[in-house]
Amino acid sequence: MTPTITAFENSPDRGQGLARDMRVRWALEEVALPYDVRLVSFAAMKAPEHRALHPFGQIPTYEEGDLVMFESGAIALHLAERHPGLLPDDATARARAITWLFAALNTVEPPILELQTAKLLEGDKSWSAQRMPLVLDRIRVRLKELCAYLGDADWLDGAFSVGDLMMVSVLLRLKPSGLLNEFPALAAYVARGEARPAYKRAFAAQLAVFTGQAAAHKE
Amino acid sequence: MTPTITAFENSPDRGQGLARDMRVRWALEEVALPYDVRLVSFAAMKAPEHRALHPFGQIPTYEEGDLVMFESGAIALHLAERHPGLLPDDATARARAITWLFAALNTVEPPILELQTAKLLEGDKSWSAQRMPLVLDRIRVRLKELCAYLGDADWLDGAFSVGDLMMVSVLLRLKPSGLLNEFPALAAYVARGEARPAYKRAFAAQLAVFTGQAAAHKE
Repeated sequence: MTPTITAFENSPDRGQGLARDMRVRWALEEVALPYDVRLVSFAAMKAPEHRALHPFGQIPTYEEGDLVMFESGAIALHLAERHPGLLPDDATARARAITWLFAALNTVEPPILELQTAKLLEGDKSWSAQRMPLVLDRIRVRLKELCAYLGDADWLDGAFSVGDLMMVSVLLRLKPSGLLNEFPALAAYVARGEARPAYKRAFAAQLAVFTGQAAAHKE
Repeated sequence: MTPTITAFENSPDRGQGLARDMRVRWALEEVALPYDVRLVSFAAMKAPEHRALHPFGQIPTYEEGDLVMFESGAIALHLAERHPGLLPDDATARARAITWLFAALNTVEPPILELQTAKLLEGDKSWSAQRMPLVLDRIRVRLKELCAYLGDADWLDGAFSVGDLMMVSVLLRLKPSGLLNEFPALAAYVARGEARPAYKRAFAAQLAVFTGQAAAHKE
């Protein structure tokens, strides 16, 4: 049964691939599972019909028969546990990969989300310029630790896994800030993720939504 | 094989049970698994020996034979998948419970972490008082949505699960702020979590570390 995911009808980042549907698209491409996409407008995302699928009124959602999921981390893990390609077979290695999935979402992403909040919701506040260095420094702490751990390895723990998929996705959010360039090993790690054929297919698919909409607007 | 977890030698919250070892202790108690605890000082937590277990220099860690894990979410899921008590048997219900585990950590907790950062790391800044209402309002958005979803149900999705364990743990961080009282249904939900015998045993165990240390200091 082909699963259906939801994505933004109008990409807020103009097709840069930073919305969370990209994480699910990438996971689906890594496990070679075809999928359908239903596009939702900002208004529809907050309406009761969508909230019945996603109580927090966001994208992506994932529907597969009777099952309705949200949270890109949960969906990526769901796919990784059911299809080969995103988790090793060995139980210990599997638990390690899942550890990194959570580390991406709950240790590395929170300070990065603070940066987004600082820019998007508090960029016009009187304290914005003075506060920004503190926000950036808190991200640097995590990046430095991650960089020290990664060393010269290609991926976080052996072969590429759902943990890498999520860590790369989280770090990609830093691209506009230039912070990644302070940690060349992490920039190279992210580039390795972006070079994967599955990533490229997923990126092209989300970009096509934006370019399609942009073309439609021009007409 | 009895697993070993790490916890703070000196509880930063004076035994209120808000450190992340509490989440793992609670999960271990729910699945009735005995465990050992190794206490680490703040200095030891940042030393290479501990960072070999936890690259971000935090607690808790989880050691079980050859396996070393960190991230309370990953550890709770690991326990839930291997022992009865924290996940339903039905595959769809299981995926739903795991969705809520991620929602607790990646949708509800980030704005709550911002509040902690605002208080602990920016409480002395010139913008602190003016900024605080914005931080609190962003949490209220999530609490309102969660409250609307929960309705008059006891737990998030059927029987108590690892999703509830994590959501209650995340919401507990709001207790000092008084925010939970604005959402009586959520306050009652959290109270139901705290009333569980497994929660009480875990809470008593982490408190004993603090009271033991406090007693030792008095001598």
